[in-house]
Amino acid sequence: MDNNSTVEKENHKNTWSGRFNEPVSALVERYTASVDFDQRLAEYDIQGSLAHAQMLAEQGIISNADFTAIQQGLNQIYDEIRLHQFIWLKEHEDVHLNIEKRLTALVGDAGKRLHTGRSRNDQVATDIRLFLRASIDEIVNLIKAMQLALLNLAEQHIHTIMPGFTHLQVAQPVSFGHHLMAYFEMLKRDVERLNDCRKRVNQLPLGAAALAGTSYPIKRERVAQLLSFDGICLNSLDAVSDRDFAIEFCACAALIMTHLSRMSEEFILWMNPAFGFIQLADRFCTGSSIMPQKKNPDVPELVRGKTGRVNGHLVALLTLMKAQPLAYNKDNQEDKEPLFDTVDTLTDTLRIYADMLTGVQVNHHRMRQSALQGYATATDLADYLTKKGIPFRDAHEIVAKSVQYAEQKGCDLSELTLSELQKFSAQIESDIFAILTLEGSMNSRNHTGGTAPDQVRSAIQKAKKWLSV
Amino acid sequence: MDNNSTVEKENHKNTWSGRFNEPVSALVERYTASVDFDQRLAEYDIQGSLAHAQMLAEQGIISNADFTAIQQGLNQIYDEIRLHQFIWLKEHEDVHLNIEKRLTALVGDAGKRLHTGRSRNDQVATDIRLFLRASIDEIVNLIKAMQLALLNLAEQHIHTIMPGFTHLQVAQPVSFGHHLMAYFEMLKRDVERLNDCRKRVNQLPLGAAALAGTSYPIKRERVAQLLSFDGICLNSLDAVSDRDFAIEFCACAALIMTHLSRMSEEFILWMNPAFGFIQLADRFCTGSSIMPQKKNPDVPELVRGKTGRVNGHLVALLTLMKAQPLAYNKDNQEDKEPLFDTVDTLTDTLRIYADMLTGVQVNHHRMRQSALQGYATATDLADYLTKKGIPFRDAHEIVAKSVQYAEQKGCDLSELTLSELQKFSAQIESDIFAILTLEGSMNSRNHTGGTAPDQVRSAIQKAKKWLSV
Amino acid sequence: MDNNSTVEKENHKNTWSGRFNEPVSALVERYTASVDFDQRLAEYDIQGSLAHAQMLAEQGIISNADFTAIQQGLNQIYDEIRLHQFIWLKEHEDVHLNIEKRLTALVGDAGKRLHTGRSRNDQVATDIRLFLRASIDEIVNLIKAMQLALLNLAEQHIHTIMPGFTHLQVAQPVSFGHHLMAYFEMLKRDVERLNDCRKRVNQLPLGAAALAGTSYPIKRERVAQLLSFDGICLNSLDAVSDRDFAIEFCACAALIMTHLSRMSEEFILWMNPAFGFIQLADRFCTGSSIMPQKKNPDVPELVRGKTGRVNGHLVALLTLMKAQPLAYNKDNQEDKEPLFDTVDTLTDTLRIYADMLTGVQVNHHRMRQSALQGYATATDLADYLTKKGIPFRDAHEIVAKSVQYAEQKGCDLSELTLSELQKFSAQIESDIFAILTLEGSMNSRNHTGGTAPDQVRSAIQKAKKWLSV
Amino acid sequence: MDNNSTVEKENHKNTWSGRFNEPVSALVERYTASVDFDQRLAEYDIQGSLAHAQMLAEQGIISNADFTAIQQGLNQIYDEIRLHQFIWLKEHEDVHLNIEKRLTALVGDAGKRLHTGRSRNDQVATDIRLFLRASIDEIVNLIKAMQLALLNLAEQHIHTIMPGFTHLQVAQPVSFGHHLMAYFEMLKRDVERLNDCRKRVNQLPLGAAALAGTSYPIKRERVAQLLSFDGICLNSLDAVSDRDFAIEFCACAALIMTHLSRMSEEFILWMNPAFGFIQLADRFCTGSSIMPQKKNPDVPELVRGKTGRVNGHLVALLTLMKAQPLAYNKDNQEDKEPLFDTVDTLTDTLRIYADMLTGVQVNHHRMRQSALQGYATATDLADYLTKKGIPFRDAHEIVAKSVQYAEQKGCDLSELTLSELQKFSAQIESDIFAILTLEGSMNSRNHTGGTAPDQVRSAIQKAKKWLSV
Repeated sequence: MDNNSTVEKENHKNTWSGRFNEPVSALVERYTASVDFDQRLAEYDIQGSLAHAQMLAEQGIISNADFTAIQQGLNQIYDEIRLHQFIWLKEHEDVHLNIEKRLTALVGDAGKRLHTGRSRNDQVATDIRLFLRASIDEIVNLIKAMQLALLNLAEQHIHTIMPGFTHLQVAQPVSFGHHLMAYFEMLKRDVERLNDCRKRVNQLPLGAAALAGTSYPIKRERVAQLLSFDGICLNSLDAVSDRDFAIEFCACAALIMTHLSRMSEEFILWMNPAFGFIQLADRFCTGSSIMPQKKNPDVPELVRGKTGRVNGHLVALLTLMKAQPLAYNKDNQEDKEPLFDTVDTLTDTLRIYADMLTGVQVNHHRMRQSALQGYATATDLADYLTKKGIPFRDAHEIVAKSVQYAEQKGCDLSELTLSELQKFSAQIESDIFAILTLEGSMNSRNHTGGTAPDQVRSAIQKAKKWLSV
Repeated sequence: MDNNSTVEKENHKNTWSGRFNEPVSALVERYTASVDFDQRLAEYDIQGSLAHAQMLAEQGIISNADFTAIQQGLNQIYDEIRLHQFIWLKEHEDVHLNIEKRLTALVGDAGKRLHTGRSRNDQVATDIRLFLRASIDEIVNLIKAMQLALLNLAEQHIHTIMPGFTHLQVAQPVSFGHHLMAYFEMLKRDVERLNDCRKRVNQLPLGAAALAGTSYPIKRERVAQLLSFDGICLNSLDAVSDRDFAIEFCACAALIMTHLSRMSEEFILWMNPAFGFIQLADRFCTGSSIMPQKKNPDVPELVRGKTGRVNGHLVALLTLMKAQPLAYNKDNQEDKEPLFDTVDTLTDTLRIYADMLTGVQVNHHRMRQSALQGYATATDLADYLTKKGIPFRDAHEIVAKSVQYAEQKGCDLSELTLSELQKFSAQIESDIFAILTLEGSMNSRNHTGGTAPDQVRSAIQKAKKWLSV
Repeated sequence: MDNNSTVEKENHKNTWSGRFNEPVSALVERYTASVDFDQRLAEYDIQGSLAHAQMLAEQGIISNADFTAIQQGLNQIYDEIRLHQFIWLKEHEDVHLNIEKRLTALVGDAGKRLHTGRSRNDQVATDIRLFLRASIDEIVNLIKAMQLALLNLAEQHIHTIMPGFTHLQVAQPVSFGHHLMAYFEMLKRDVERLNDCRKRVNQLPLGAAALAGTSYPIKRERVAQLLSFDGICLNSLDAVSDRDFAIEFCACAALIMTHLSRMSEEFILWMNPAFGFIQLADRFCTGSSIMPQKKNPDVPELVRGKTGRVNGHLVALLTLMKAQPLAYNKDNQEDKEPLFDTVDTLTDTLRIYADMLTGVQVNHHRMRQSALQGYATATDLADYLTKKGIPFRDAHEIVAKSVQYAEQKGCDLSELTLSELQKFSAQIESDIFAILTLEGSMNSRNHTGGTAPDQVRSAIQKAKKWLSV
Repeated sequence: MDNNSTVEKENHKNTWSGRFNEPVSALVERYTASVDFDQRLAEYDIQGSLAHAQMLAEQGIISNADFTAIQQGLNQIYDEIRLHQFIWLKEHEDVHLNIEKRLTALVGDAGKRLHTGRSRNDQVATDIRLFLRASIDEIVNLIKAMQLALLNLAEQHIHTIMPGFTHLQVAQPVSFGHHLMAYFEMLKRDVERLNDCRKRVNQLPLGAAALAGTSYPIKRERVAQLLSFDGICLNSLDAVSDRDFAIEFCACAALIMTHLSRMSEEFILWMNPAFGFIQLADRFCTGSSIMPQKKNPDVPELVRGKTGRVNGHLVALLTLMKAQPLAYNKDNQEDKEPLFDTVDTLTDTLRIYADMLTGVQVNHHRMRQSALQGYATATDLADYLTKKGIPFRDAHEIVAKSVQYAEQKGCDLSELTLSELQKFSAQIESDIFAILTLEGSMNSRNHTGGTAPDQVRSAIQKAKKWLSV
């Protein structure tokens, strides 16, 4: 290989340089080259080239001998890359030309025939779609793994009572399992969105050539079939210039990270000693270089921070495409790094989150204590009164006064005496005390989507079924 | 009404004020009130309340008499709003309380019973989803109207030749109809994305109450049925805090505007006298207060500019939701204005665009002239040579040299003599001249997605079919 | 006025319509008109016109009689607008033409001469800069009012001890006054940034005319002087197309909102019963329509949410300007709404925040209790050992072990006996107990910027001085 | 080193691990480690440590012997890093601990004393500020180099006439030199903004320790002096958590890229054969893998695309900081990659742009031809009439009619006969023809900021002076 590459260097001439009077400068070469980051597409570039070459041979555009040579050459290159023996050269600009140059070095003229009837414009669009399709499939699997971890944790905590918050004020007691299942729902939508996005990713641009199609009798449907695409891009100008799929994916990713940022925020709060609801396993935390007592929830903090990163990539891609005239423009080379980093951020984060959920230790006692602060069952008193015929708005007012009274007295509603309570409404009877307990409140919310343990159990069952499909 | 509202004012007390010792200040009232913008949801708020009340009555939670009173009251309120007779009061904070207060004024205690088993948290989530569902349906119709206008224009220009650009340099001749159909494809994806988004919008949150469900024996499935929702939100905490649907919609909207920004950029370029490809009808242009000769493509310029607006709203919503702990927080009130403005921007822009397309005048001559600049058929010469057995990469090099020669001579490739051409390759014969014409080039790209007129006609047929479904 | 405007309507013709064959459609008129939002610039438009007319008269470009007429007319219009008697017409597009048309109706030909030597392109740029300059001055005053409220609160709490958090874990005890002063510093930078931004806002574009300057012998320096601009825009193409100043302002605004979002996050946390550090006055909170016990920190929640709004506007403006060719394009009309809304959001938010700070009630006890959880003085033990010659890294390790021991025992470091402590290091002596107190720890951080009360007091003094300049 | 690092590996234990029961998992180590990207700060980390150690010694906190050892050790490490002999270990998390561990290996206990009185929180903040200060200085130099290239080009083209566009329609003739100077003004503001930003970057956080200061008698002013900081951060909590400076820098960067995106858009347009205003040197262009005739303006296209990247980083950082409670949170680790990439994008882009400007070939003929299309001197006719006493608005109307007439006749205004012109206004006389020339129009805009060659020359003189200061 070394000899080879020396020779290459001496003969260096850009593929398109026939009409140029001066070579690109070193700075320009570096600025415009993408091989440093797009070599990541090599596997998909080879897949795409193999299918393209097979179609060319089947259509009689190249000979079977050429196809066989191309196949052998590309397989060898694939191995070289896998074994880190491949030498990437910036002077060959991108992954496509690096591979093609090497192919020609290996198999001669057959290599030069591979590019018949295609262009880098449709080739790179195909590569990215293949890459993104595989990434989506992996991410969906990782989300499901995380959902499974959520389900397992939720199942253990169907009866664990915590304060449900609105405005971060104690609102009503809820099942911790129920709380966790809210995230299951978010992630379920994420899976559905990714699946919808995948349909639009999985369309073949190859055959659009530079922008207008090609004069060769190609058969795009056959290439689509060989590469398991759902369909083909029906307009060549659109095929080479479309980056919707990347933007749609980044929008899905931004929502996934938004969901994880919310869970992270809660984990960070719950780790604070004032809450003390949970502990994360030590292996997900780090300490301080100066404060020896610290155990910091680094992982959720980083996840929260990385939300910005993914939002930023979405903005980058939207800005990139704004007001670009048709068809392909070099601007589009800037699509790759945000996309790659989004995929990496998601896969790492989901993997670490699924693992972290298995190490969450729950402090039932602290959760319960916290639910007892803040008059979490006041709504239940209002509902009790409403069921006795008092219009809801009036009942609301009665309870507000009782809460004000209890607050001044420094106790919970359930700690008031019956006669104290009756000062606010004569309709209150002794059966109220069962209702003012945390369990009474939680169990009463017994309809689809409610926090009653029966409902949570049933939601978990449904979720398991959905996951197993 | 006037008397009524005077009384209301005197008795003014916030619905939740029972436990408060001081009223909110005027500044706070203004800062926290949403009625100025959320009154737009009134129609949907009433729809939702009617279905909720019907279910309450069917479940025996309120009496039929109460339901009838509520129905009559809400219908009257609907009329008052429609006729601009309704008096909105900032001191009643939002659309929900304004309507409820008026209802109670109209029908007494029955009005106070309407809020049984629900909260503003699930109520507002329901309202926004109803609003957004209707908006999506309207936007889909507007996109299809624009697609129809595109189809009509494309059909007239199947044989109109223009230069296809990559890097804004002349690349290959393409059919203007084909170029327009690229936008049809983009908009088709937009419709599909909106339809996918609609599935997730069209889930009922009502019944989640404040965050945990309610102790009343409600039947959420029945409400969903009455309001034509596809399903119900399966977790109450998620139901009140989820704004994914708004973000997903804004991401769809950002892509639509991105597509329109690209078409606008092209229209602006094509209106420039150096191109002169098209004229927009005078009614879509404005002039200058100082330069009497100007005819400015204001509409496409504004559309291009409004892309920023929609991207900004998407960022606003993503920032809003980042790291919000469960469940409902007041932050979420900030979801409405970006969403409303996004819907308005889209509907206005799509409507004006569909109309504008009907007034596009095409200058065939200028398009053709422009296609003749820039060696648009050079690829065809390379393909010609490849078909004679020269490997593509070598053919590319031969053509590059010929282009350099022709450029120095100041003529097109087709203007070189046969013997001049043969200096670059002996394989060139006289049949080359048919290939070097614009029509020869365009007609040869004859496969699915290519620019050959037969393909464009067939694409238009497919598109018509898709539209008519 | 009514008669007048009826006549106007009949004669309606756009100012630039001489060369147009058809009027703009109603939809286009609505889409392109800006008068609904830019009428807000009226005051500044009149200011600018008065200065422009005076210069025209001084240069002999218009007569003194014309100037006097223009002056009287504009003053009358100013009054009409102030008294809401002015009739804004969408058919006159924008604030500039509405005023000019009215001026001509009032004073005849002199009105038609006002636009001599200028264009709407430089006129609107001047108006926005005047508006923004005034807005910046108001915002700076509001920030300073908020800083004063912070100082007052900080001064009361120099000795109030709270847990300082890193990673939201208890780190070291800090003075609550010191904590508040961190926000003073942030806001101080905000003031400095706004002042820097103001220098670039306060440059006069007028005189650039449409894009190239004018053939009249104008004197831009004189107009700048009359309008108190610091200088004039030195390139006419740049003058009409530059919107840097709006973007720079929005970037400043995004940072201000970021700071307020951080304080809001803390207020929300501190209002949670698990913390219970503060109570906001009732007038800054709202209740729940369903949960009678709730007192929600609505204002800080809304502030946190509105951060997204301002970030979104910044993105909108950056997207707007991306890749716009020179000079003025209609896209720029989209600069106003984001800018206006940013100014309004900031002024409302700062005003409400300054007021809210005066109503913060601090619970010293809960803060102190919380500082005692979490081994806040562990660093002090490490520093104690280091001062006895143990290298810091080794001391860190010793203390980590002691914390682990105390944690298992369920007590604080200061609750261990001397002999227990000495098991970890023989160098620990009885003087350690003074160091392990919250006060001991806090008082020891006694250098510029540290949390020792002396330092906090001195920081407050410096801050007062800065404010009073 | 190798032996050493083997030993290190065996003894591997995180610096803060004393109280932890299990090590971080490999995935967590990878997820939380920053050494892959923050090793870039090594030079600044060493600078900061040297100054810190010197102050510690001067204050008697460490011995002079320790200081000498630290100095020698850090100098050796600096050399090792420079020569790529330093072994970075992910298990040591970040640049700070990697260097400190190596220092201790080299100089023993003195190394362990270096961290006395500081924390990684203030250390990393110091490192980034040092890095950013150096980056700003380099960027300012690069902007100035680009401005010089602009000046040189502008100076050659003071008399070159091109069409000035508004709405991308021909507006008025302008000097190409004047057009280029618009970008000089934009970049001048960029320099000023960076200089303002630098003041806020250049404040020393060191001494804030973890968040509250330290109990050692440090002297922060001395460290600031040694490191050439303009001042010190006056509040320790703010010092460790503030990332305003990074956001402000990214906002400046976004504006710089916005300016370059605008110039790039124009270069791309001007390279299109329909314009043909300029050619970029071959070395800044690339060709096509399929279309042999192409010469693509890759560099400006990439610059235009990279605008999205920088906007995205700004959004990432704003999202990162939104609603973060004080003081330091791990989220902040995410500040580095966006910042580094922004710096790299800017430095590469500015460098390439300055070079590219030297290779711009201008086609005077095409520019002039283009200025003759589109009635660029119509405003001059209107001004001519106004000077004869016709109110501007009436003159505007007269010219609009003449343009309409000329357009129908297919000629320019200057090609109409005097009698034809007089049909529109009797006041037109034969001196009009001098005014209707491009030169006449351009020369007449002769006031500060106008396009008259005298003004452009004077603007260039001023600019040179500004640059040389």
